[in-house]
Amino acid sequence: MEKKIITISREFGSGGRTIGHLVAEKLGIPFYDKELVEHIALESGFAPKYVEEHGEHSPGGSIFSYAFAHQSVPGVMNGLSTADFLWNVQCSVILQLAEKGPCVIVGRNADYILKDREDTLHAFIHASKEFRADRIVRLYGESEKSPETRLAEKDKRRKVNYHHYTGRTWGMSQNYDISLDSSVLGVEQCADILVSLMNVEK
Amino acid sequence: MEKKIITISREFGSGGRTIGHLVAEKLGIPFYDKELVEHIALESGFAPKYVEEHGEHSPGGSIFSYAFAHQSVPGVMNGLSTADFLWNVQCSVILQLAEKGPCVIVGRNADYILKDREDTLHAFIHASKEFRADRIVRLYGESEKSPETRLAEKDKRRKVNYHHYTGRTWGMSQNYDISLDSSVLGVEQCADILVSLMNVEK
Repeated sequence: MEKKIITISREFGSGGRTIGHLVAEKLGIPFYDKELVEHIALESGFAPKYVEEHGEHSPGGSIFSYAFAHQSVPGVMNGLSTADFLWNVQCSVILQLAEKGPCVIVGRNADYILKDREDTLHAFIHASKEFRADRIVRLYGESEKSPETRLAEKDKRRKVNYHHYTGRTWGMSQNYDISLDSSVLGVEQCADILVSLMNVEK
Repeated sequence: MEKKIITISREFGSGGRTIGHLVAEKLGIPFYDKELVEHIALESGFAPKYVEEHGEHSPGGSIFSYAFAHQSVPGVMNGLSTADFLWNVQCSVILQLAEKGPCVIVGRNADYILKDREDTLHAFIHASKEFRADRIVRLYGESEKSPETRLAEKDKRRKVNYHHYTGRTWGMSQNYDISLDSSVLGVEQCADILVSLMNVEK
C-alpha cells in the first residue's frame, strides 16, 4: 500500500520534530506540529498553551481542572474530564487532517489514532540519553533541573498518556512500521530513510 | 562510526532470517545462523540440535538437565547450569566471530553481546501476526498446534531468554538502531534499507 501520510512519534530530545520537518520539506507536504495545537485549541476552546502542555502528557483529570473546565463551558464537554475531552478533540482533528491529503504529523499519539489508515507510515525516533541531554540544553537552554531529570519526566508523562489512551506500551517496536535511533544514524539520514518509504508525488 | 557488522533480532516468522541472508549476499559477507549453532556446539560439546533448541529459549536450567550435563562433562561447566554454560559459550563465540571481520549475525541475543562494538548495527525485524502465521505454515508446514499458538510460544520463550540474560525487554525500539515491520515494508525493502546503512566495501 502506498504511503502518503507519516506519523512521527519521538522521545523528547531525539530530533524527531526536526526529522519530521525535513521529511515534509523534502516531500513538499504540510507539517503538523504547532499547527496541530492551534487546530485542537480552536476546536476545543482551550488555550493553545494548555493544549500543548496537556495533549500528550499524563491524563491531567485533576478534580480542579475538571470542575473548572466544566463550569467554563457548561454542557459542551458532556461530563468528560478535560483530559478525555481534549483526547476526543485531538482524535477528531487528526482524522480530519489526514483526510485532507499527504502530510507529516508529529506526536499526539497520531500513530494510534491513524492505525487503521493503510496509506499511513508510522515512525518512532529515539536516541541515546547523552545525545538527548545535549540536544535539549542546546535547543531549549539550561533550567534548574538537570537535563537527565527533564528527559525522565517528559518521557514518563508521554508514556503514561500513551498507555492510558491506547493500551499500548510506548516505544515498543511493534507499534510502529519503522523505529530509528537518531543518535546512531543521524538526523539527516533518518529523514532520508523515511522519505524513501513514502509515495508522494513531488 | 562506520558499520561493518550487523546483528538481526527477529520475531518468529517475520522473515528476519531471510532478510539477514539477503543482506549478507548483497554485501558479500559471511552470514552466521546455522554456522553459529555449529560453532557453539563445537565449543560447548553439546549437540547442534540441543544448541539450536536452547540457545535463544527460556533458560532451561531444570534440575535434570543440570545434573545430567554436570555428570557428563565433570568439571568443565564450573558448576554452571547448562543454560548458563551455553550462554557463556555463545557470548564467547559471537565476540570471536565479530573480531574476524564484517558479517551478519542472526538471533542469539547478539545485539546485547555486541552492544559495545561501535562498528555494529543492531536491527530488529517484526511483522503482523497474520503475516507471520501465514509465513510459518508456508515455510515449516502445518503442525498439530495452530500457527497462532506456535508464534505465541516461540515469542514467549525468546522474550524470557532475552530478559533473563540481558535485563532488557525484548522488542523495545531502544534496544536497536533500527526496527522494521517486514509485513508493511516487505522483505526485499527491509534488506535494502539495512544494506544502505552498512559501510562494507563490496
